[in-house]
Amino acid sequence: MQTPHILNTYRSAIDGALRSMLEPYTLPLYDMMRYHLGWIDEKGNEAAEPTGKALRPTLCLMACEAGGRGYERAMPAAVAIELIHNFSLIHDDLQDGDEERRHRPTVWKIWGGPQAINAGSAMRVLANLALSGARREGLPADKYERLLGIFDRATLRLIEGQYLDIKYEDCFDIGVTDYLAMIRGKTAALISCSMEAGAIIGTDDTETAERFRELGENLGIAFQIRDDILGIWGDSRTTGKPGGGDIRRRKKTLPIVFALSNGPVRVKRAIAGIFQKGAVGDLDAEDVLEALGEAGVYAHVQEMVEDYCEQSRRLIHAIQMERRFKDNFEQIVEFLTVRSH
Amino acid sequence: MQTPHILNTYRSAIDGALRSMLEPYTLPLYDMMRYHLGWIDEKGNEAAEPTGKALRPTLCLMACEAGGRGYERAMPAAVAIELIHNFSLIHDDLQDGDEERRHRPTVWKIWGGPQAINAGSAMRVLANLALSGARREGLPADKYERLLGIFDRATLRLIEGQYLDIKYEDCFDIGVTDYLAMIRGKTAALISCSMEAGAIIGTDDTETAERFRELGENLGIAFQIRDDILGIWGDSRTTGKPGGGDIRRRKKTLPIVFALSNGPVRVKRAIAGIFQKGAVGDLDAEDVLEALGEAGVYAHVQEMVEDYCEQSRRLIHAIQMERRFKDNFEQIVEFLTVRSH
Repeated sequence: MQTPHILNTYRSAIDGALRSMLEPYTLPLYDMMRYHLGWIDEKGNEAAEPTGKALRPTLCLMACEAGGRGYERAMPAAVAIELIHNFSLIHDDLQDGDEERRHRPTVWKIWGGPQAINAGSAMRVLANLALSGARREGLPADKYERLLGIFDRATLRLIEGQYLDIKYEDCFDIGVTDYLAMIRGKTAALISCSMEAGAIIGTDDTETAERFRELGENLGIAFQIRDDILGIWGDSRTTGKPGGGDIRRRKKTLPIVFALSNGPVRVKRAIAGIFQKGAVGDLDAEDVLEALGEAGVYAHVQEMVEDYCEQSRRLIHAIQMERRFKDNFEQIVEFLTVRSH
Repeated sequence: MQTPHILNTYRSAIDGALRSMLEPYTLPLYDMMRYHLGWIDEKGNEAAEPTGKALRPTLCLMACEAGGRGYERAMPAAVAIELIHNFSLIHDDLQDGDEERRHRPTVWKIWGGPQAINAGSAMRVLANLALSGARREGLPADKYERLLGIFDRATLRLIEGQYLDIKYEDCFDIGVTDYLAMIRGKTAALISCSMEAGAIIGTDDTETAERFRELGENLGIAFQIRDDILGIWGDSRTTGKPGGGDIRRRKKTLPIVFALSNGPVRVKRAIAGIFQKGAVGDLDAEDVLEALGEAGVYAHVQEMVEDYCEQSRRLIHAIQMERRFKDNFEQIVEFLTVRSH
């Protein structure tokens, strides 16, 4: 499936605002961020590397427009969200020992772990400074303070989710509920924050903002589960991540958690046996894929994606906004259900 | 020299406020912070381990009182500052590979690097949430927003300083100016922020706040240089850090930078030769100490401490405040010039 048109609508505006935000910062520390964002190569020369989808800032701007005000108003918040997202990616790559992101060496791989910690932490602080731009553009003080709280709590939940993700590496008795607690933090919190923040800026109706928050939560969970599916069955050429990589990295993604907690005993034993070994080789990865196939895991987890998407559609239906905005949100839901990258 | 009385005056109030701030957070992620702060042992049992001096929050509360308002008003800011300071300590210990702090294993040593990154990052976010408490206690919105900016910029400078510190590890041509740029970020920025924030809360006079900012900058530089002196010539029993540890860790602290840039050629060669080796043993450390002695480095760097202290005294004299407050600040300056821990 093609990337929905709406994901390109704000792309250059977001990119321009992000670049302006980083512009005044000239220390090499900030070049690590520019590299991570795909703007320069590791020597500092301009580059136009593939960048992310900018899903989170786009959802923020969309929620603002759907609320009734121009999307430009939400740009400082959108930039802050993209910075928070990338703060977590820079740290995650180091924490997970991932050496590549979008076919390029990760920040820690080039500059080392200690400097990657600095680049990530500084990016989270820049997010605060980006958000303060909303005040200069006329956002009332009470809304600004509400946003600050939402952004900080979302970041805490993000870190809590990452904490659980790492903790689960050594656990074999985690169930789907534990998994959901983890991704609610790791993924859903920030997507939810994006949409709630956009709605708070775009409308004064608190119920609308609350529903956008819920929509973001459901979309975020659907997005992460689909990401887990791609991490096991995805094509590395389109995802930009190594194929079957999540198995090799022994990540407790939903397919694995599902098989370990709901699969037949033989399947559980096979997967646990492989995951408890020090390293997972090619043959091991194939065995895990076979075990997952035997337990029919793909269909079960894709059904979960669809459930969260269905709940998202209900929320889109319930939120008061123009038809064209509903269509855009539905396109994103559709994309998340079947996306291959 | 004894720790000045003023450093104990607010100690229990700060400790109580810090504990209240962390109270609602029950995930084990937050126990890593409690451990770092000396409140629990690594198994989660209550402990009363030696804690830090709380120099930064104390300076914040002192500046508030000297400005004319009760110190309690500045407590949310003081708590935020102590959290920012400890966010940086948790990350620094990991970045520097330090295995002990205050005679206990560091957070990363117990829970691993990835979780130490999470604990530190979450602590920085908690600082934002702590500061927002000032609004609930009546701080006007404009002052709150000013503080937010000051805290975020100080954190950026802190990270920039840490970035330089790590970068300098592989450089042998750095001079005293480079060193000062590094510690202005790494140490002076947050101490300066503490005093400016306290003054902003304690008075409406912007010139007073500006002078407290300058005072913090000078005090911070004096403090760091004295810390560097202790890192080489200090007694490990009183500092809580391994003796001569900064030499073994090949840190480019001021005595080393001074010798490398201003010492006789023979001294430069001796130190550079040892620092360029993979590891610094006991005999190497003794050779470095001897080379520093030959170049008379101690007297030179202690003179720099005294210069920054003298400048601090001038600022204390210039700031309008009651005599007793001036005396307290002078006690701290005195302590920093000659402290042994």
